[in-house]
Amino acid sequence: MNFSLTVLGSNAAIPANNRNLSAHLLNANERFFLIDCGEGTQFQLRKYHLSMQRIKHIFISHLHGDHFFGLIGLLHSMHLLGRKEELHVYGPAMLDEILHLQMEASQTVLNYPYHFHPLRMDHYDLVLEQERITVHSFPLHHRIPTCGFVFREKNPPRRVPAARSYAYCSDTGYCEQVIPYIQEVSLLYHEATFMQNLAAVAADKFHSTAIEAATIATKARVKKLLLGHFSARYEDVGPLLEEARSVFPETYPAEEGIPIDIG
Amino acid sequence: MNFSLTVLGSNAAIPANNRNLSAHLLNANERFFLIDCGEGTQFQLRKYHLSMQRIKHIFISHLHGDHFFGLIGLLHSMHLLGRKEELHVYGPAMLDEILHLQMEASQTVLNYPYHFHPLRMDHYDLVLEQERITVHSFPLHHRIPTCGFVFREKNPPRRVPAARSYAYCSDTGYCEQVIPYIQEVSLLYHEATFMQNLAAVAADKFHSTAIEAATIATKARVKKLLLGHFSARYEDVGPLLEEARSVFPETYPAEEGIPIDIG
Repeated sequence: MNFSLTVLGSNAAIPANNRNLSAHLLNANERFFLIDCGEGTQFQLRKYHLSMQRIKHIFISHLHGDHFFGLIGLLHSMHLLGRKEELHVYGPAMLDEILHLQMEASQTVLNYPYHFHPLRMDHYDLVLEQERITVHSFPLHHRIPTCGFVFREKNPPRRVPAARSYAYCSDTGYCEQVIPYIQEVSLLYHEATFMQNLAAVAADKFHSTAIEAATIATKARVKKLLLGHFSARYEDVGPLLEEARSVFPETYPAEEGIPIDIG
Repeated sequence: MNFSLTVLGSNAAIPANNRNLSAHLLNANERFFLIDCGEGTQFQLRKYHLSMQRIKHIFISHLHGDHFFGLIGLLHSMHLLGRKEELHVYGPAMLDEILHLQMEASQTVLNYPYHFHPLRMDHYDLVLEQERITVHSFPLHHRIPTCGFVFREKNPPRRVPAARSYAYCSDTGYCEQVIPYIQEVSLLYHEATFMQNLAAVAADKFHSTAIEAATIATKARVKKLLLGHFSARYEDVGPLLEEARSVFPETYPAEEGIPIDIG
């Protein structure tokens, strides 16, 4: 049974070096969850032949543009392409206001039921529970209120030995407070905007270095670490990967469009 | 001296058939004017090596998403890439509210002076006058308030025999009222969403057929006609072109990224 992640964007702030803006698609037993939605996410879904209409739940970690400017266009395209099935969006309360103002301006009434769920940004919270999965949000350490998310299988399908899990740590400075929430996940995505020589810049901008991401992975005893949200200054992300692997060997770089089996 | 247009997006409503969403870049003697800004416009500028920082004026025709969802991301990228020069945005009044709400959400204070100019949507109006160019807006016939724009050279440079001009008729049903405003322009861009067999659908959706666009071009005695805003149902736009040419032979299809010399 499928439990896999496809990264759609891996660059920080601006599109560069053929890398796009933050968006992750989790396939949990053919249920599709989109996490963050930078500008152009709908193009990336199309490019990799991933159906936007199969996405039922969208989680937005915070309101920096590189994490949500693609959402309004995606909602409109779902509408224009005839969606009828309901869609749930989870994000900071102000996101609903932003989406509604743009729908009002274009006099768009979505064809499909759209439900907005404001996140409680300041503590660990259960945001979704289904038969086979739970999704929790938890606070990160960023310039504006920002959540991470953790997806945990509840009743793993037969032939899968253990419940699988995926944690998404979007923009954040080094933050040991997240460790209890992401403890022992199968795959941890953690942002790694900078190399270690720019640790002071990272701290100042509430971002992490690759080594800091790897340190969190080690302390949380996760199985694998995925790095992304790379600064545009790094055309080649190999050196970030090397730094992280010096601390946590099971580290991999986000590669757009290539599904990762979470085992 | 350069007076040229680069189309960055030519599809209606959704990106499809390798065509992007509406955006035109006019180079008038090395002054750059962006007209409409669908999602992904910043990617298109980058793809065709066109500097976003050289754009000083942006005109938004109306608030359907395929014409402006890329603007907020472009303004942010200009900021993140260190722009200092002022930027002028012209559009429906509500656009300013939409942009400000998103900047407030991300706590972004732009590094560069940003001036918003609300358009008067209901009549012909001078919106910009410089030493060498005037820009007027004029009402189109669409479901929500929508403007066309006409750019006219005032004092053509030496060695250019006559003042050149470019008119942009964004989304509109067939509308003879625009003819006085676009009379004899060097290049008319007119939307051509549908073929003639869908004329009733076009009228119902406040869009035009290719033949209607060509009829306007003929009646306004323009020199050349450029078609775009093609419905996603047309993978090949050859048949739309053929229909238009049966009425107005000097018709060309929008081809993204290829500059058109307006002579």
